[in-house]
Amino acid sequence: MTAAAPIDFWFDFASPYGYLMAEKIDALAERHGRAVRWRPVLLFAVLRALSLPAPLESAVKRDYMLRDFDRSARHLGVAFRLPEGFPAPTQHLARGFYLVDAVDPVAARRFALAAMRAYFTEGAAIGDMANVARWMSAQRPSLGDETACLEALRGAEAKALLAQAVDEAVRQRVFGSPFVVVDGEPFFGVDRLPQIAAWLEGTLGPP
Amino acid sequence: MTAAAPIDFWFDFASPYGYLMAEKIDALAERHGRAVRWRPVLLFAVLRALSLPAPLESAVKRDYMLRDFDRSARHLGVAFRLPEGFPAPTQHLARGFYLVDAVDPVAARRFALAAMRAYFTEGAAIGDMANVARWMSAQRPSLGDETACLEALRGAEAKALLAQAVDEAVRQRVFGSPFVVVDGEPFFGVDRLPQIAAWLEGTLGPP
Repeated sequence: MTAAAPIDFWFDFASPYGYLMAEKIDALAERHGRAVRWRPVLLFAVLRALSLPAPLESAVKRDYMLRDFDRSARHLGVAFRLPEGFPAPTQHLARGFYLVDAVDPVAARRFALAAMRAYFTEGAAIGDMANVARWMSAQRPSLGDETACLEALRGAEAKALLAQAVDEAVRQRVFGSPFVVVDGEPFFGVDRLPQIAAWLEGTLGPP
Repeated sequence: MTAAAPIDFWFDFASPYGYLMAEKIDALAERHGRAVRWRPVLLFAVLRALSLPAPLESAVKRDYMLRDFDRSARHLGVAFRLPEGFPAPTQHLARGFYLVDAVDPVAARRFALAAMRAYFTEGAAIGDMANVARWMSAQRPSLGDETACLEALRGAEAKALLAQAVDEAVRQRVFGSPFVVVDGEPFFGVDRLPQIAAWLEGTLGPP
């Protein structure tokens, strides 16, 4: 461990590139003795606040990206299958994450990665509130059973925690997913992994 | 040499990521016995035809990209300094390229790379028609002196050649710079270099 600030990893749970980064960032950071703070947001809300269009709005780019998701997953050696009904709404999952994270960040990480793997390899219904509640309870039983977790997901704390994260993302101009910030240096996209590695090694920057 | 079709390298002369790709793509292709066809276009015209916004339109993304240009150049070991008055208009340079290319593709390549290096390391005025004419004449003296090249740059052939390239780019949905197409597989961005390499090695695709 080190006294350095954690690396911020911003993402949306329905973002394929975000999922690919989720499979890679912790191991990379750990090799450099750095911790990672996972910060899911609702990308559409952040983009709207920044007056930016949604990434899949243009059909031309969408066609390319659907091909590139798959190719990038193969390139990184990560299992991937575009889910039916992509992209799913992610507010319940993100709220669930912050509720788990508030009591147990390690369980929250497991919860997040398990949900993304289920979504991006088996098409699990991550938009479904009952599923989210069940996964919360399974990862962190002290939160109570599925019913208790459902109630928590509907509560004010869940909404406030996610709203806070979205506000902070807007302030930090998180204009896409994944968006990784290392000591103030922003890296957008899973294709910046080699640059993040070089940055952590000290061979790339600061300028 | 091989019977495989050449790799298409689409770019705009004022695109920093296009310049970084220009410094890398030929050597990569050559290692795999492949030729590269350089195809400069006016990106704003292609994007307009595809109903897409210009890449630097948003201030939020622009700030990030200005930082990322520099960082990506360091990462790839390429000299780079953002020119004054970036981005420069590139229609004269692109027309000059196609005029040289029509008689001598090797000289056209030299002409293109020299112009981009002059622009992206010394801030040379690549938008200036007289400069373009002088560079054409220097790279391919049989085209005549600067005055003759100036006349050619103003002529119908120059306009037609570039218009043809822009039309073809629109048909192929070239929505950014650089945009590399290998046997029908599209790769957008200089950050796709590792994937292009893997594709050429046969370790990545086709799916």
